[in-house]
Amino acid sequence: MRKESDFLGPRDIPLDVYWGVHTARALENFPISGQSVSAMPELVQALAHVKKAAAGANVQLGVLSESKAAAIIGACDDILAGQLLDQFVVDVIQGGAGTSTNMNANEVIANRALERMGHQRGAYDHLHPNDDVNASQSTNDVYPTALHLAAWTSIGPLLEAMAGLRQAFEAKAEAFQTVLKIGRTQLQDAVPMTLGQEFTAFAALIGEDEARLKEARKLMLEVNLGATAIGTGINAPVGYSDLVVPLLAESSGVPVVPAANLVAATQDTSAFVDLSGVLKRVACKLSKIASDLRLLSSGPQAGFGDILLPAAQAGSSIMPGKVNPVVPEVMNQVAFEVIGNDMTITMASEAGQLQLNAFEPIMGWSLYKSAKHLTQACKTLTTHCVQGIQPNGPVLAKRVTESVTLVTALTPVIGYEQAARIGKTALRTGATIAETAEQLGIMSAAEMMELLVPENLTAPVRLAVAD
Amino acid sequence: MRKESDFLGPRDIPLDVYWGVHTARALENFPISGQSVSAMPELVQALAHVKKAAAGANVQLGVLSESKAAAIIGACDDILAGQLLDQFVVDVIQGGAGTSTNMNANEVIANRALERMGHQRGAYDHLHPNDDVNASQSTNDVYPTALHLAAWTSIGPLLEAMAGLRQAFEAKAEAFQTVLKIGRTQLQDAVPMTLGQEFTAFAALIGEDEARLKEARKLMLEVNLGATAIGTGINAPVGYSDLVVPLLAESSGVPVVPAANLVAATQDTSAFVDLSGVLKRVACKLSKIASDLRLLSSGPQAGFGDILLPAAQAGSSIMPGKVNPVVPEVMNQVAFEVIGNDMTITMASEAGQLQLNAFEPIMGWSLYKSAKHLTQACKTLTTHCVQGIQPNGPVLAKRVTESVTLVTALTPVIGYEQAARIGKTALRTGATIAETAEQLGIMSAAEMMELLVPENLTAPVRLAVAD
Amino acid sequence: MRKESDFLGPRDIPLDVYWGVHTARALENFPISGQSVSAMPELVQALAHVKKAAAGANVQLGVLSESKAAAIIGACDDILAGQLLDQFVVDVIQGGAGTSTNMNANEVIANRALERMGHQRGAYDHLHPNDDVNASQSTNDVYPTALHLAAWTSIGPLLEAMAGLRQAFEAKAEAFQTVLKIGRTQLQDAVPMTLGQEFTAFAALIGEDEARLKEARKLMLEVNLGATAIGTGINAPVGYSDLVVPLLAESSGVPVVPAANLVAATQDTSAFVDLSGVLKRVACKLSKIASDLRLLSSGPQAGFGDILLPAAQAGSSIMPGKVNPVVPEVMNQVAFEVIGNDMTITMASEAGQLQLNAFEPIMGWSLYKSAKHLTQACKTLTTHCVQGIQPNGPVLAKRVTESVTLVTALTPVIGYEQAARIGKTALRTGATIAETAEQLGIMSAAEMMELLVPENLTAPVRLAVAD
Amino acid sequence: MRKESDFLGPRDIPLDVYWGVHTARALENFPISGQSVSAMPELVQALAHVKKAAAGANVQLGVLSESKAAAIIGACDDILAGQLLDQFVVDVIQGGAGTSTNMNANEVIANRALERMGHQRGAYDHLHPNDDVNASQSTNDVYPTALHLAAWTSIGPLLEAMAGLRQAFEAKAEAFQTVLKIGRTQLQDAVPMTLGQEFTAFAALIGEDEARLKEARKLMLEVNLGATAIGTGINAPVGYSDLVVPLLAESSGVPVVPAANLVAATQDTSAFVDLSGVLKRVACKLSKIASDLRLLSSGPQAGFGDILLPAAQAGSSIMPGKVNPVVPEVMNQVAFEVIGNDMTITMASEAGQLQLNAFEPIMGWSLYKSAKHLTQACKTLTTHCVQGIQPNGPVLAKRVTESVTLVTALTPVIGYEQAARIGKTALRTGATIAETAEQLGIMSAAEMMELLVPENLTAPVRLAVAD
Repeated sequence: MRKESDFLGPRDIPLDVYWGVHTARALENFPISGQSVSAMPELVQALAHVKKAAAGANVQLGVLSESKAAAIIGACDDILAGQLLDQFVVDVIQGGAGTSTNMNANEVIANRALERMGHQRGAYDHLHPNDDVNASQSTNDVYPTALHLAAWTSIGPLLEAMAGLRQAFEAKAEAFQTVLKIGRTQLQDAVPMTLGQEFTAFAALIGEDEARLKEARKLMLEVNLGATAIGTGINAPVGYSDLVVPLLAESSGVPVVPAANLVAATQDTSAFVDLSGVLKRVACKLSKIASDLRLLSSGPQAGFGDILLPAAQAGSSIMPGKVNPVVPEVMNQVAFEVIGNDMTITMASEAGQLQLNAFEPIMGWSLYKSAKHLTQACKTLTTHCVQGIQPNGPVLAKRVTESVTLVTALTPVIGYEQAARIGKTALRTGATIAETAEQLGIMSAAEMMELLVPENLTAPVRLAVAD
Repeated sequence: MRKESDFLGPRDIPLDVYWGVHTARALENFPISGQSVSAMPELVQALAHVKKAAAGANVQLGVLSESKAAAIIGACDDILAGQLLDQFVVDVIQGGAGTSTNMNANEVIANRALERMGHQRGAYDHLHPNDDVNASQSTNDVYPTALHLAAWTSIGPLLEAMAGLRQAFEAKAEAFQTVLKIGRTQLQDAVPMTLGQEFTAFAALIGEDEARLKEARKLMLEVNLGATAIGTGINAPVGYSDLVVPLLAESSGVPVVPAANLVAATQDTSAFVDLSGVLKRVACKLSKIASDLRLLSSGPQAGFGDILLPAAQAGSSIMPGKVNPVVPEVMNQVAFEVIGNDMTITMASEAGQLQLNAFEPIMGWSLYKSAKHLTQACKTLTTHCVQGIQPNGPVLAKRVTESVTLVTALTPVIGYEQAARIGKTALRTGATIAETAEQLGIMSAAEMMELLVPENLTAPVRLAVAD
Repeated sequence: MRKESDFLGPRDIPLDVYWGVHTARALENFPISGQSVSAMPELVQALAHVKKAAAGANVQLGVLSESKAAAIIGACDDILAGQLLDQFVVDVIQGGAGTSTNMNANEVIANRALERMGHQRGAYDHLHPNDDVNASQSTNDVYPTALHLAAWTSIGPLLEAMAGLRQAFEAKAEAFQTVLKIGRTQLQDAVPMTLGQEFTAFAALIGEDEARLKEARKLMLEVNLGATAIGTGINAPVGYSDLVVPLLAESSGVPVVPAANLVAATQDTSAFVDLSGVLKRVACKLSKIASDLRLLSSGPQAGFGDILLPAAQAGSSIMPGKVNPVVPEVMNQVAFEVIGNDMTITMASEAGQLQLNAFEPIMGWSLYKSAKHLTQACKTLTTHCVQGIQPNGPVLAKRVTESVTLVTALTPVIGYEQAARIGKTALRTGATIAETAEQLGIMSAAEMMELLVPENLTAPVRLAVAD
Repeated sequence: MRKESDFLGPRDIPLDVYWGVHTARALENFPISGQSVSAMPELVQALAHVKKAAAGANVQLGVLSESKAAAIIGACDDILAGQLLDQFVVDVIQGGAGTSTNMNANEVIANRALERMGHQRGAYDHLHPNDDVNASQSTNDVYPTALHLAAWTSIGPLLEAMAGLRQAFEAKAEAFQTVLKIGRTQLQDAVPMTLGQEFTAFAALIGEDEARLKEARKLMLEVNLGATAIGTGINAPVGYSDLVVPLLAESSGVPVVPAANLVAATQDTSAFVDLSGVLKRVACKLSKIASDLRLLSSGPQAGFGDILLPAAQAGSSIMPGKVNPVVPEVMNQVAFEVIGNDMTITMASEAGQLQLNAFEPIMGWSLYKSAKHLTQACKTLTTHCVQGIQPNGPVLAKRVTESVTLVTALTPVIGYEQAARIGKTALRTGATIAETAEQLGIMSAAEMMELLVPENLTAPVRLAVAD
């Protein structure tokens, strides 16, 4: 054990850890979820980028000596190389607007830097977590900046996973482009379309969401680094702000820019609300698509049965041979979680007060889970479901030819009311549309057949009949 | 025009209205929704009950003269008889913790009482909205008490409507008790059941919700009348609290009781959260049932088609003869609204501060809409949908006999893995289960048929095969 | 009474109404909220624009005769001139994906057109609601297109109201630019700033929201008119789609464009989710600002008391002279409602199935309320609150000079730990920072004062001390 | 590696694990959150209780041999003793209605039982995960039953933690019972009360929530064990249901009872919605209390400053000596998470279809997090915050004597309007109430003082002045 002190007094710290007294206090105060900040590697990396950029700016402005800055930057590079992740031990759910996460980072970096300088951990006389690692900074600019960076990074794989899913739908759409089926509105048989059109629509819906998500992701590029405590830049030297953000962009490879109004930016969490709102939109869409896949594959005997999903696992512990749409189901559940996370983020954002929002930790964690789980769900939906979908050909073909919904195509000729009469009668009697038209004295079956000849029909029905 | 004044100065009030200057200010300050408090007649009635009870207590304690009290009580009775509803003009969405609604009530009652006493409206020297009508009261006890009363009253018709819906399902359950069908889990064919069992379950689900709603409704019986501003009873005479609540119970016929801790009760809005939470539960259930009705009636040719819903209206402006499940669809939408209202109520409750929650008006309005819309949706679902449901007999019977899911009944004899093999093969080849068992060398078709003889099967399958 | 029929049979319709049998059925089926579609005048106008554009395209393509088209267009112009609003009687909450609203519009327009042609209402042989007014259309393209148009139109006044509020904050920010105060983070005294900076931040926050809302509003410009039932354009003549959308843009003055994939667009409601999500963001921000105004004006004696809100009305029915922040409070409540509405919209969107989302009516209504109520709340916040805000000058000045938070400015010189010691001691003893530094032996009071000389300090504290 | 097979074919399973092929498939299909079911030890224990009870019933009914049953029960006891937790590896977020969790349990128990019988893992000929461990069961009764049991168990510590928090408030209430302060409504100074009354209210609020939570917890006692796949009890022998639930009660010590309608119970998830709804209520309350603590301790110089929270850690990385209300802040965040979780649960429940709700895994996980995090947050709030709260005595006393709100106490004598005039004038001029009354010619200062003599005042003000 080594001893460290804060204004609450001295405290024993295990010899082998890189964190210090402030982290130790946080561990006692926030034993909430059992998940530590290391569960968000992107955030840890982002913190390292921020601390590295700050050290770079500080040394240029004479706030830090060359040797201290070099040690700090070296420690940050160690973290960026994947080391020390397990030293980020404070709970993801924590009070204090991220102070404990920032302190944890300051302490880990300080102690690794001390080690690099040939000192013992805890020898803060040589290099101090607050005075040196945190120089010219405040939690209130470091933490939101790191969250922005981490969110940007986390959205990347989601965009890729969405693109993968879209492409899988596109491939199926092409394969299914001549497969006719009955489209459904309000779960009732409507008018003919192709299975290809249905799958193209899935792809188009996802494509649109990708575009929207890319836009929303850009909101993460505005950072408040340099704002320090409340946006006035107190304790940061003149010129710091202009130096540090470009250094951060350089270190991270993410084209971050400084926010226009630092006081506003330091209290504002709308960018998270917005980004989460778009993730909610994505979740709604993916959930709708997952539900459609479950509907379309329902049966196999007593359901819609338009398509067959690949079997991913045994569906039941009691019903042998039952295959369930388990992969779409997990997508639905992730969507419900994302929508819940959005509610959490919304409440946390609304609850901000005056110059700061103290509830950023829960926003960061909720957003992280949303992005991560959506990514994973898209991937498994792609590989374990969509890529293996097959049309239920014979069933689809039979339904189109027998469908009473073909009367819709006749309304331009015989009017809505007559067409409705034919349709309802045919459905009741089981007779064909042409037979029914004759029975009702509307026109002879021959005349009706003439109308139903492809070239006399509007496009989709023509396609259906011609096949 | 007559002139009235408050500390902001004098203001013209139309001669023919019963409300006064405080109401006029509120009309200017809160032009939000365009819906006035008169849209909640139950709340207006509740306010009249409260003011009447307060006048009754005040006259007994010497706070009001006999003549003033009689005039106030008379005015309240006019409101209870349905008069003056159009004088409650302040917006349902208002700042001020209900002060404007209370002031509106005070003014209307004062002016009607003045009229009864032979004075002109606005002649507050003779009887004052605050000093007399509001004597021994504060908005902070009057308004929540009235909201509790109004909520209690509004839940009554909902409970009746739910009971009506439950009974409609029960009647159908009885009619369908021998109709066999394939049950479905995860939208996949599972094992046999009767349509009667399915509808009994709907009835049972609603019955349970009725029980829970009755329980939650009781939370409305605890009122904080007598608490005045913050629960300490300031400005209410000794003994007032003991008198006024029983008088309120007598006037309203609702068995209200005083809250145990008036300081807690005055700041607490959990009862609304709880009641709304149970309405949310009810909404989830009704939405699930509505969705099930839509699924079960999907088709008519390319869907589940287990049941036929009665046609309520033409389903489409373009597709002749199409009939859509429009009544269940309105139930789904009301459910979504109720869930949204619950979120509003939750946020408003969470945002309460110190000795009062200033956001009760939006809670009251949201709760009112939830109760009212659910009531109406239950009624229309009962009369325009459930009562006319018919089973799709031939389809159901055919499916049960052909269903591969019957193999489930064989697992106790041949084991899960063998049964799974038979089921999957039968589904692929279209052969029967017995044929498949023989082909796979598991047992002869005769042996298999023996197993499927009703008396050798467990209950539900026995029922299915025996039919 | 006149008689009209649908496939459910004949039905009496009041002679003097413009609506017909389909509307009558909807009135029976959906007695939910008591609010009719006429509560959304923007939607009624949008429907008239759509029907007018469709008639224009139909006559060009020979689907409608010149005389019918002229009559229909004339009827639409009557509606656009503000007539017939009271004929849109179906409930805002309705099943059927908007069919009843579309049918209501078809019938009203048909009957007004018949009147213009010199026929009696109900003489549909001469001009038919479905075959003529609805020609080449389906509810499934008409209704979402009209909702998009109505939403676009409703957002306009909100943007104006937000700009008005922003300008009010900007004016105050300029007036307050030299008023020093203590900034607060986590409700604890932090470091100095100016009241002008605080109000500039409010303005900046709103300005950013305006920008985001303008972006999201553009999503409404993509319409699916021409898609008819499911996006395949069935029953619309070739070329219709290319004609009708430009005609709609011309009639409405809104630069609508056709959606790229009509099948996707017909089932997709993400644009509503997105727009509502941005309204939720706006609501969060405005609620946060309203809460800040309430905090900053808390007191007058036992609170923060940084600013004085103008008195809008008497605050209490019991506490004389009490003035409450009633106008910010109504903004908070509207925000809670908007967040609830967003939940409703989210659920309705997620619940869409296959080629259509049947739940657009509740989305349209919820979105409408959100836009409308936010508009009204912004306006009243501007005129009844922000424009009259005054700084509590003496209190603010006193606090800045006495504040212990000035030690923050010393950390670059004496380090975090020494500064913390001085701060905590000063707070406990009531001595000044300089005195405390001397007592603790850190430096002489003179040296400390030297450090606190403006030119030795970083910007905000320099500003504070120099004032 | 050992080989296991399912209908997808053979698969290698690591030799040293207890799970088998079905678990392996689930690991591939659901790589979502990275958190395995072992993160919910209460659920793993509950599954062991269920499997043990089922084995007990099966052996009595001759479905299992004595030796198999003994081995299974022994394996369950091992799990109940805390072993094998790390073998529950499937993701907490999974498709398939809990099938993978049930399969995971079946496999782990089977392999441990095989080991106890002297066989190798995977030797399912001797004892089969489905045919033996899962005998007479389905995921659809096992999993919800286990979730009910786990939820019951998880609520226990929460109730204890809430009681602890309540007691801490009660102790403070007693200590503060004579400390006078100004109560606040709408953040504005209202009327006097004691700090003891304020803290008693906190205790009362929590006490009421405990009562409601105990009630809601009871909903978990109804289980559907014996329902098997859809509630009809298919594949369970006659008499099984009557035996197994009492055995489960005996094993677990939780007084579970069978649900009345097993078909309804198998598809119904309302009990989770209800319980989560009450957790949401609890969260709202605790969040409100946490916010109140933050408000009451705001300052130390420029805030409310009624109370002093104990310092839990350094509040800022930049502002030395700043102490923040970090522990209440974590409670707020947990509350926001719980409200988000409730939304997730609500959506998952609403989305149930027909005979089953496939989305129970996300409900179980969300509910678990809510209960667990609230428990931890209550504990830390108790020990790291409430127990150390001190009143800010001098400030409170000074404010009460100077407060203009005392005029409220005069309204019964001089009327609302006169009192309002005095109050507003006194506030503007800074003169005392008595002086102001004289200046305004309402009464002499002496007369006024007479009115303010304690015995002439209503209770709370009397208390205040008398002190």
